[in-house]
Amino acid sequence: MAFPVRTCALVGRFSDPRIAESVGALLPHLAAKPVTVLVSEDAQVNSPQVQRVPEASFGSRADLVIAIGGDGTLLYAARLVARHGVPLLGVNRGRVGFLTDVMPQDMLGSVDAALRGELSCDERPLLAARLHSADGRLAEALALNDVVMQKHDTGRTLDFETRINGQFVNSHGGDGIIVATGTGSTAYALSCGGPIVEPHLPALVIAPICPHTLSDRPIVVSSGAVIEVALVERADTQAHVICDGALLGDFSAADRLEVRTAAERVRLLHPPGHDYYRLLRSKLHWGRGSFER
Amino acid sequence: MAFPVRTCALVGRFSDPRIAESVGALLPHLAAKPVTVLVSEDAQVNSPQVQRVPEASFGSRADLVIAIGGDGTLLYAARLVARHGVPLLGVNRGRVGFLTDVMPQDMLGSVDAALRGELSCDERPLLAARLHSADGRLAEALALNDVVMQKHDTGRTLDFETRINGQFVNSHGGDGIIVATGTGSTAYALSCGGPIVEPHLPALVIAPICPHTLSDRPIVVSSGAVIEVALVERADTQAHVICDGALLGDFSAADRLEVRTAAERVRLLHPPGHDYYRLLRSKLHWGRGSFER
Amino acid sequence: MAFPVRTCALVGRFSDPRIAESVGALLPHLAAKPVTVLVSEDAQVNSPQVQRVPEASFGSRADLVIAIGGDGTLLYAARLVARHGVPLLGVNRGRVGFLTDVMPQDMLGSVDAALRGELSCDERPLLAARLHSADGRLAEALALNDVVMQKHDTGRTLDFETRINGQFVNSHGGDGIIVATGTGSTAYALSCGGPIVEPHLPALVIAPICPHTLSDRPIVVSSGAVIEVALVERADTQAHVICDGALLGDFSAADRLEVRTAAERVRLLHPPGHDYYRLLRSKLHWGRGSFER
Amino acid sequence: MAFPVRTCALVGRFSDPRIAESVGALLPHLAAKPVTVLVSEDAQVNSPQVQRVPEASFGSRADLVIAIGGDGTLLYAARLVARHGVPLLGVNRGRVGFLTDVMPQDMLGSVDAALRGELSCDERPLLAARLHSADGRLAEALALNDVVMQKHDTGRTLDFETRINGQFVNSHGGDGIIVATGTGSTAYALSCGGPIVEPHLPALVIAPICPHTLSDRPIVVSSGAVIEVALVERADTQAHVICDGALLGDFSAADRLEVRTAAERVRLLHPPGHDYYRLLRSKLHWGRGSFER
Repeated sequence: MAFPVRTCALVGRFSDPRIAESVGALLPHLAAKPVTVLVSEDAQVNSPQVQRVPEASFGSRADLVIAIGGDGTLLYAARLVARHGVPLLGVNRGRVGFLTDVMPQDMLGSVDAALRGELSCDERPLLAARLHSADGRLAEALALNDVVMQKHDTGRTLDFETRINGQFVNSHGGDGIIVATGTGSTAYALSCGGPIVEPHLPALVIAPICPHTLSDRPIVVSSGAVIEVALVERADTQAHVICDGALLGDFSAADRLEVRTAAERVRLLHPPGHDYYRLLRSKLHWGRGSFER
Repeated sequence: MAFPVRTCALVGRFSDPRIAESVGALLPHLAAKPVTVLVSEDAQVNSPQVQRVPEASFGSRADLVIAIGGDGTLLYAARLVARHGVPLLGVNRGRVGFLTDVMPQDMLGSVDAALRGELSCDERPLLAARLHSADGRLAEALALNDVVMQKHDTGRTLDFETRINGQFVNSHGGDGIIVATGTGSTAYALSCGGPIVEPHLPALVIAPICPHTLSDRPIVVSSGAVIEVALVERADTQAHVICDGALLGDFSAADRLEVRTAAERVRLLHPPGHDYYRLLRSKLHWGRGSFER
Repeated sequence: MAFPVRTCALVGRFSDPRIAESVGALLPHLAAKPVTVLVSEDAQVNSPQVQRVPEASFGSRADLVIAIGGDGTLLYAARLVARHGVPLLGVNRGRVGFLTDVMPQDMLGSVDAALRGELSCDERPLLAARLHSADGRLAEALALNDVVMQKHDTGRTLDFETRINGQFVNSHGGDGIIVATGTGSTAYALSCGGPIVEPHLPALVIAPICPHTLSDRPIVVSSGAVIEVALVERADTQAHVICDGALLGDFSAADRLEVRTAAERVRLLHPPGHDYYRLLRSKLHWGRGSFER
Repeated sequence: MAFPVRTCALVGRFSDPRIAESVGALLPHLAAKPVTVLVSEDAQVNSPQVQRVPEASFGSRADLVIAIGGDGTLLYAARLVARHGVPLLGVNRGRVGFLTDVMPQDMLGSVDAALRGELSCDERPLLAARLHSADGRLAEALALNDVVMQKHDTGRTLDFETRINGQFVNSHGGDGIIVATGTGSTAYALSCGGPIVEPHLPALVIAPICPHTLSDRPIVVSSGAVIEVALVERADTQAHVICDGALLGDFSAADRLEVRTAAERVRLLHPPGHDYYRLLRSKLHWGRGSFER
């Protein structure tokens, strides 16, 4: 039988004891396979069988990335390989995982299935954020979950405006705004009152963060929409833009943030029997009747 | 110049003084046009120039329906003609109107434009609700805004389950559940914590009403989804199904409600310059800074 | 040692198998004590040792009421004895219980402690609801959790007004309104976006149900406040008033509902180590990180 | 007639044109009265009749402080004089004002009434925040609206714990937490899903900011409660404490924040006819039926 994966890369905070435990079980297992294993140059891994290469090269070298940790680790891995279409397998060692849905006890079996190319591939859209600074600089990043424009450093809230496809939507006051994919709809946007959006629906969520105006509710728009955000000049405010938890840059009154669906997609591998609604029921403690009346 | 509309029907609560005022201005205006005007047989209209026919025949006879009142009146008119594709013009005499967006002072001009076929037509999807009773009966209705399964008559809350495309989603406890179109997302579902969904997005909102479990949040799914709702047997509960505010039928533990996007669409006529986000800003008092901090 | 309790009454849906099981264990245990046991005349209990009396006499005859079931059963028992100050012990056989906090396995020990007068007594305020009908009738009831004015039978929402201590507060549109005690703040009002209010705080929650206006938020007022609700005349609406889940009466446009804190208080007995916040953590699944970002 | 106010201080951003306009009208008016007028040493005021003194001395020198601007300006003024009980009159030149409720056109009349001691005085409780740093330093501040512990500078959310009167309440994950007075319940806490709390109710609101766990709802507790907040150690998180919008200090995992009701109270002067619920109706756009269904 052919072996579709020849090179796999491991991503994780290997200094975390729980993750080190999983890596300690995974490396000998992989050593017995005809697979080259890549880790980051500075990875805290004590094994002669791994190749240490810059993480930035994972995208071009690996046929598979195994992310061990929580959803934050998988988001990090997704950014490393998003432009190369390398499939991602997420092993959950964090608190909860919408994205890392392989349980530790199922890791070796799922990894074997991934190496044999037997896992189904779930393509998820990405957001492309472009931060146009007033001085002409452009910062760009991809995000699997969300692009967030948010106040920082001061208690002063922000005044900002949104446009969709060039059409004015609203003048907002508050802590900021989130543009999320369906994948990200169960992350930060959910904390901000956003809906759950099926990950494959061609739609984006725009969710204000702690808005002054209580009717400033989340909006669900087409994934084809181009969303623009601009600050209104106001003393003492500071804002920045965050993509999947990583800083894209500071955001000032003359800058402009543009978010649209990216051309690239992330390829998530799921264990057999993956069921989105079962995942929701489990993560959100559904059906347990949190209280009675 | 050709005159595309030969027959138009008027719908409204003509006994309401504000609506009677608009009708009083509209009828003489229409009398000067080569247009037959239809009203309901029991309409409180004092004019020799109108033809009184059953409302049920508006769909097959009229080329245009003018609904005068609030959104409730337009929803009523939409149900009358949904299966015939007759365009609807909504003149607002209610409190607010997401759907009836012609202001009274613009009525005559907009009606003329509608008669000449000059208004742009905005096709909105409808929901088709099917209530399968345990005894084999089937009740069906279309809804432009929403299909609601809700407790009635007692204070006892409901236990119920939802499925999407046959797949189990959740066991809910609470007052009921709403399936809304994007059009209906700014109606009852918004009061229940649902998001605003662009009317043309191919998506439906499923919003629980006052759920026990606080993480039982609204879900946005594909407009291609088939949504099923079934009650769990529980003493002393009573429920019914409501489509756009009109009763479809009682709902018992052995019954099954199925909601999907209908084959039919409603054709709304808008005055020139119609702007969905301006409508939202106006209706939701956006951008007025409801409070400051 | 003196035995403070000479007569105890049992309240519950004895036809429910789980509750029958608890009663089957409790009756022989009580038979060995110098305690008279009362049950309702029509109670499905097969034991020669119990006295069958009208439930309405429990308040004047019993020194202790043991409610077996869920919070609904305890609310029912509270209404039976509220005017007599009889202490209540709640044994939980329902799904969750903010009020019935004795677990089945701890029942016999907690009952013994209650009979010996050793359990701490937690006095909870009650609401007194007065429904003044336009025709001069007056309906009154007490409520431990909440008084609810709500639409019924139709899909039409209500227009209504609220006053506090005679002062106009707001014109509301929506499904109704809840006045809740701190005890009831974790019941229906929580589903409607209300806050958790410590049960002993001298405060009431007024929470609108699915309000049209998104800024129509719950208000917390002094327990000394008198809250009035009146409907605004509107076609096709129907409303009623519910106290702790039991119907007080229909509510029409000329009627007036008045809610204030009652003179009476309910006396809840708690097992040792009762901890309100631990109860909240357990019932609300706190601290389990429902999702991560 | 006696003139109770001999010295009044003006507070505001005098460089703002709208505020300069009000000051330009107020100063000549005050010059004709037997009243000494104080402004800050660096105030941009061009008038020989004012005395320039350090703002920190307003509390000991002034009998009245007139704050001109928005609620932020009044909060600033309240901090200046809170320990001295000097009454405050707020003239609204900001966007909205729960606290600055004198309209510009009514300014001179209201100031005259305040100088004559004719305005009713509304005593509002303050919060006292104490930030105990691990290294033994103590930072303290008063707040009329709220004490906020919040993430800053990074996109990483916080893990933190709360205690009330020494009793463990909850382990939270999210962006932070607000402790608000009734006065502050209509400010930031309202944006975070908190209830409206009558300003004179002896109660505090504890409202989590964008919590991970959707059942982590606002809690209303006694104004006698001592609320403690401590961070749980987690990589890459940064937090600070903000009192009424002003930084109290950075907050690290070994630090401890303690919030309780202060011994001091703020004395707000209101124009005749001040009505809390009318203010709410106006600020929150109540009763305008933001949408219909």
